[in-house]
Amino acid sequence: MKAEIIAIGSELTGGAKLDTNSQWLSRQLTDLGIVVHFHTTVADDLAENVAVLRIAVGRADVVLITGGLGPTLDDLTREAMAALTDVPLEPHEPSLAVITEMFTSRGRTMPDRNRVQAMFPAGSDPLPNPVGTAPGIWMEVPRDGVPSDEEREPCRIAAMPGVPSEMYRMFDTQVRPRLPVSGRVIRRARLNCFGIGESHTEQLLGDLTARGRDPEIGITAHEATITLRITAHGANDDECDQKLRAASASIRRLLGPHVFGIEDEELQHVIVRQLNDAGKTLATVESGTGGLLSHWLTDVRDFDRCYSGGLVLPTVASQQRELDIDPALFVAEGAVSETVAGELATRCRARLGADFGIAITDDRGAEAVKHPSLPAAVVAMATANDVHVLPVQRIGNRAIHRSRTVKSALNLLRLHLLDET
Amino acid sequence: MKAEIIAIGSELTGGAKLDTNSQWLSRQLTDLGIVVHFHTTVADDLAENVAVLRIAVGRADVVLITGGLGPTLDDLTREAMAALTDVPLEPHEPSLAVITEMFTSRGRTMPDRNRVQAMFPAGSDPLPNPVGTAPGIWMEVPRDGVPSDEEREPCRIAAMPGVPSEMYRMFDTQVRPRLPVSGRVIRRARLNCFGIGESHTEQLLGDLTARGRDPEIGITAHEATITLRITAHGANDDECDQKLRAASASIRRLLGPHVFGIEDEELQHVIVRQLNDAGKTLATVESGTGGLLSHWLTDVRDFDRCYSGGLVLPTVASQQRELDIDPALFVAEGAVSETVAGELATRCRARLGADFGIAITDDRGAEAVKHPSLPAAVVAMATANDVHVLPVQRIGNRAIHRSRTVKSALNLLRLHLLDET
Repeated sequence: MKAEIIAIGSELTGGAKLDTNSQWLSRQLTDLGIVVHFHTTVADDLAENVAVLRIAVGRADVVLITGGLGPTLDDLTREAMAALTDVPLEPHEPSLAVITEMFTSRGRTMPDRNRVQAMFPAGSDPLPNPVGTAPGIWMEVPRDGVPSDEEREPCRIAAMPGVPSEMYRMFDTQVRPRLPVSGRVIRRARLNCFGIGESHTEQLLGDLTARGRDPEIGITAHEATITLRITAHGANDDECDQKLRAASASIRRLLGPHVFGIEDEELQHVIVRQLNDAGKTLATVESGTGGLLSHWLTDVRDFDRCYSGGLVLPTVASQQRELDIDPALFVAEGAVSETVAGELATRCRARLGADFGIAITDDRGAEAVKHPSLPAAVVAMATANDVHVLPVQRIGNRAIHRSRTVKSALNLLRLHLLDET
Repeated sequence: MKAEIIAIGSELTGGAKLDTNSQWLSRQLTDLGIVVHFHTTVADDLAENVAVLRIAVGRADVVLITGGLGPTLDDLTREAMAALTDVPLEPHEPSLAVITEMFTSRGRTMPDRNRVQAMFPAGSDPLPNPVGTAPGIWMEVPRDGVPSDEEREPCRIAAMPGVPSEMYRMFDTQVRPRLPVSGRVIRRARLNCFGIGESHTEQLLGDLTARGRDPEIGITAHEATITLRITAHGANDDECDQKLRAASASIRRLLGPHVFGIEDEELQHVIVRQLNDAGKTLATVESGTGGLLSHWLTDVRDFDRCYSGGLVLPTVASQQRELDIDPALFVAEGAVSETVAGELATRCRARLGADFGIAITDDRGAEAVKHPSLPAAVVAMATANDVHVLPVQRIGNRAIHRSRTVKSALNLLRLHLLDET
């Protein structure tokens, strides 16, 4: 079962717009066990559209098209599909009614031009579009245009809107159910870890990550967060879910508290949940990361129940003045030192009257260049009773270093809260 | 002059990777006056690669290929190009020497497998790759494989590595110079504005934005920053630059101080430059934008000369406690009010001992829903003598609203500093 995905639009071939639909559809088809061999993008030209469709029907069993279903003159998908099978375009009253209603409901009258969106190649099926004016088209084309070709099934063609949100919805509800399925299912899950490197993680997981295993486990790193992508194959969802649960369990056994979340969860989401569950509050102070930690925290739902506030003190002077730290400390230990970081965390905790204080000192690389032996950043977490500090070495570019530093600070608190419960 | 761009790799057709090379190349060719009619992406399959190349040669005058030049068994571009023209692959000693040297210089010995990267279809030209091991291939193919075809020029094929950084470099240095050029040049420039909407900008610019004009001026909006993209066509760079300068001048005349920067410049870059030039300092306090302003400022070069620091006070309680503001004010005026914003700016300025204070109050939408009449955010900027406040209505999603709010605050200061100088 071979598939081809076609994206239509001169804004794509001209480079004004990046086509992401084809990749998304490729993933969907791959999950359905249908292998995509070709992507084609073609400009808004009728003859070229027809030629591209003809080639696709000749080399693929499933052809998914996005774009060219709008009401304007350069939307040619309808005409191209009709020309491909040499049939006329016919009006489809129900579709026209839906489009008209869509305009009326928005208090507008339908421009005449939109009538064309209710025209379909004779013999094709309209695919309803609940979120836009452009219905899709489903058409089954006998091989090589030869109806008498017995051996091969007809080529299945689905034309969908180019607007991603409309296309996703139409594929899920209208196209996927019509596709010939292999009877196999694929399901995915993700586990997010922090505090160990990619290769170390691989080591700890042993042959769990061996290629060709089912479920398959891949490791990717993004800004110091390690993500384990589990892919399970099975006859049905239950079988897959069972495999996913089993794999997740073994991973958690092997990596322990390094695993902090699933799917899209980041450390700040876990921290806010932990703090709100424990009814505790957090205050922060940042130098080189300049508010990145505050920004992440305040982006989490219900953060305001646990976040007392943050200070952004980029310079040593502002740190001394605001948290009234003895300048001698900075001289004796250095701005980026465990002592100064600890002091900042303790005093910011007290200042903002929170249960926990997190401090991030980061010299933005300057010092690190002068004294490569010194850490590029030090993070500290203060409780009522003690202070935990952690130096953070500079690895990767500045953006990654900043993310890793902030995450290291959050992770100190996460592990502490884990121990407490 | 028609062009087709081909991306090779099963990781692309399978959806594991998104192809961005084709869009980049489309833009380059468009700038050279060569119109791209097709993008094709094909899996790692020799027969299909050859078939795709044959189709491309049949419908395009220029074919740019990315990918499939690596040393592994699934890198088939070399073989496909040889099969297309039915010639053998021949070793190219100079290329082999370069590849070997590349390994030696990295203290490694070249794996035997890499020798294949120095094999080229007979009659083709190797394209040196200064940044990677995979040289490119330049080949001119007589039409339809019929050498006697006199009417049409041969089809020009360039194969480049799939690694974007290597591909960009090879296109610029090796491929572009070999392409048949129209003798016309295209140059672009951008002006960034803030404080007026897209349609209002269009109005002010009048027929400057009329379609088909040269230079052409397009308007795009990104997170409340309006960008004017100027595209000039000419016989040479000088002619284009002259047009760009003239257009920029008229735009600045029409939009006045709404224009704040060029190319990638954002408001925070302008502010840091303005402050450093004036030898002035800035302190900030944020509620709903939770450190976004601090984060942007500390990301700018030399920010530490002018940024005294920032407070992130997400809750009314923390604002009252930290800046010691009379709770009655919040009751009387509301947390998101011009009075409270002004108080926050004034007190944060004093607290951090800066020349200017910026305050952002933002209730993260909750209040706004309750009292649609109230602004979703209020920003304030305090100097030694006075306070400037500005309500910010909620338009667009939360991310855009936050960006607009922060930018509105920065813009207050920018305009004030403009007046002062």
